[in-house]
Amino acid sequence: MKIESLDLFYLSMPVIADAPDGSQDALVVRAEAGGYIGWGECEASPLTSIAAFVCPASHSACRPVGDSVLGKTISEPQDIARIAAALELNSMDLLQTAHTWSGIEIALWDLLGKKLKEPVYRLLGYPQAYPKRPYASMLFGDTPQETFGRCRKAHDAGFRAVKCGWGPFGRGSVKQDADQIMAAREAIGPQATLLIDAGQIWGEDVEAAASRLPALEEAKVAWLEEPFHGSAYAAYAGLAARSNAVRLAGGEASHNEFMARHLMDYGRVGFVQIDCGRIGGIGPAKRVADRASRMGITYVNHTYTSHLALCASIQPYAGLRDHSICEYPVSPQAVAWDMTATHLLPDSNGEIRVPEAPGLGIDISIEGMRNYLVDAEIKVNRQTIYRTPSLT
Amino acid sequence: MKIESLDLFYLSMPVIADAPDGSQDALVVRAEAGGYIGWGECEASPLTSIAAFVCPASHSACRPVGDSVLGKTISEPQDIARIAAALELNSMDLLQTAHTWSGIEIALWDLLGKKLKEPVYRLLGYPQAYPKRPYASMLFGDTPQETFGRCRKAHDAGFRAVKCGWGPFGRGSVKQDADQIMAAREAIGPQATLLIDAGQIWGEDVEAAASRLPALEEAKVAWLEEPFHGSAYAAYAGLAARSNAVRLAGGEASHNEFMARHLMDYGRVGFVQIDCGRIGGIGPAKRVADRASRMGITYVNHTYTSHLALCASIQPYAGLRDHSICEYPVSPQAVAWDMTATHLLPDSNGEIRVPEAPGLGIDISIEGMRNYLVDAEIKVNRQTIYRTPSLT
Repeated sequence: MKIESLDLFYLSMPVIADAPDGSQDALVVRAEAGGYIGWGECEASPLTSIAAFVCPASHSACRPVGDSVLGKTISEPQDIARIAAALELNSMDLLQTAHTWSGIEIALWDLLGKKLKEPVYRLLGYPQAYPKRPYASMLFGDTPQETFGRCRKAHDAGFRAVKCGWGPFGRGSVKQDADQIMAAREAIGPQATLLIDAGQIWGEDVEAAASRLPALEEAKVAWLEEPFHGSAYAAYAGLAARSNAVRLAGGEASHNEFMARHLMDYGRVGFVQIDCGRIGGIGPAKRVADRASRMGITYVNHTYTSHLALCASIQPYAGLRDHSICEYPVSPQAVAWDMTATHLLPDSNGEIRVPEAPGLGIDISIEGMRNYLVDAEIKVNRQTIYRTPSLT
Repeated sequence: MKIESLDLFYLSMPVIADAPDGSQDALVVRAEAGGYIGWGECEASPLTSIAAFVCPASHSACRPVGDSVLGKTISEPQDIARIAAALELNSMDLLQTAHTWSGIEIALWDLLGKKLKEPVYRLLGYPQAYPKRPYASMLFGDTPQETFGRCRKAHDAGFRAVKCGWGPFGRGSVKQDADQIMAAREAIGPQATLLIDAGQIWGEDVEAAASRLPALEEAKVAWLEEPFHGSAYAAYAGLAARSNAVRLAGGEASHNEFMARHLMDYGRVGFVQIDCGRIGGIGPAKRVADRASRMGITYVNHTYTSHLALCASIQPYAGLRDHSICEYPVSPQAVAWDMTATHLLPDSNGEIRVPEAPGLGIDISIEGMRNYLVDAEIKVNRQTIYRTPSLT
């Protein structure tokens, strides 16, 4: 069958707050082929990604993303990889490509799973999917007391793993950071998993990060996430060499498989965090999971948005039993929640599972999406090259 | 003074050919502050880069590029670095950012040089600028005979260095590639510098690339450019270890300083090629040049477009006497030639020099630009957020 249409829908909350909350807008992709429909989501700037989809070509290695996908044949997983390889050459010089393609690639897996009547994880070669333990991801409070309150709330809600990040962390003294970390540990008790996200605060400064290691070790923190710029591999390796119990985590910004590999090979992270909505979709994420597994590195999804994105991001490691932790969007904005009719809810063990249904197994809510649909239009030389498609 | 306005102009040839010729369109930036005007150019998809400049924010780390620049203070070089650092945090999750910012950053250097009455290279700390030896960059012909003809033409035009690339190279047998390389060498004589560009043809396949080394060495090729995917550092290092005389070159796609550093540190290239229109402008390129110089690696500009881009791309290594080779756009499309009133023409020694004039020292041709101006418009919820500015 041929890919007959690709529609990009820009959704947004009415007002975007100046906060590090990536669930405030969304770019959703609908793919159609052979009577089947697949859905995917980009973790990206919607308007910029739409422009990359429709822009006029600049030259033979800077073509719009749509050119390499529309009208192409898709009947098995290898077809998705083949389209991705062609796109990589055709749009080599278009930087936004990977973000735009990610949502399309996910939609194609969803569509193919529906056609072949298999969950995506099985198309990836996994005989079965294992449950994942969601962690509650939250910002540090302005004070240790505030952090304690937030973590206690997550603990009381049943979360057995909690991540605190950003906010004042790394901006004050070593003592202030230690107090924040201890407050989080006290709130969730000695058994729960505690994760800390430094939000790249130390740039490339290994000493600044290393000065926090004693508190992190005392609080039995499982990972320290993004202490440095995402590409500062030497800094990662330097800190990893000085850390005993605390392993490093990173990789969310990877917009190709190489970046994730480099963070493992050169940066020596213990956890590699992949967002399928950025890295080019489910295919490259699966290859990262394979490699992580061989190297003794734990694969984790990165998801801060919808349950469509969540379900897509779990597929690449759904079949890896020992890679059990999972990022879970605890309090997404309404747009991210409402756009799907079904959700991945924790069971009585506090664990989540990908659906045993064809494709991604998540039902889209057309009604839910319509409430947040942004009307966008792009014209070049008076010709409309993009207009928000109708949502029916 | 404050940055009062930033205007982005999308220029294009009337028809874009399906050829690897990056001079067919352009995104030109005009910056105004304190009565001064600076010009820069992005080496990027124009429409996508414009969208990244004006798009609505998605969250606090995915803001439009314009937000971090407009209205900011600029009075010395450090101000440009400060704006770049803020932008890196504010637009961390907007992938196209570096391509959009590159042209703006260049315009700010041009503006600042005019204000401070210094050529940009002097603002970068170089006491003087040295001449550069331009190489003629061309595609391989379909046959060795055709390649011979093209190279002979460049030789007769006075070029003492020639680069052949893409076309059939790497797509046929080892013998066919050897014949192509030898034809180029014969055409330019034993003294001229010969460079070969493989255009990433071997992906990560070190053996395929290594099988071409004997012919490359016999023809005394100075560099083999982009044998692999730009991020395949391990493949680069693997080939470098097996090569005696031929050094590797790469780096043109670097969209941040880290990528160029990694290619030097992990990929062991002998030449690092930087496009100021992609890496984030002149500032990060200068830091790469400093590092290359310390490591015994030769810095080279990457430029396939206008003389505005050419002049910007030479500034970061203008003061490095031993780094003398320079990419020179030999037969750019009319849009790339006509947009400037002045050009960097080879002197009687066949060498070029950056102008000893304030800023970049290149005069823009408003008339020339106007002939290629694309009328573009972007609306979000019926509000026009971008419309091609008037060019006066």
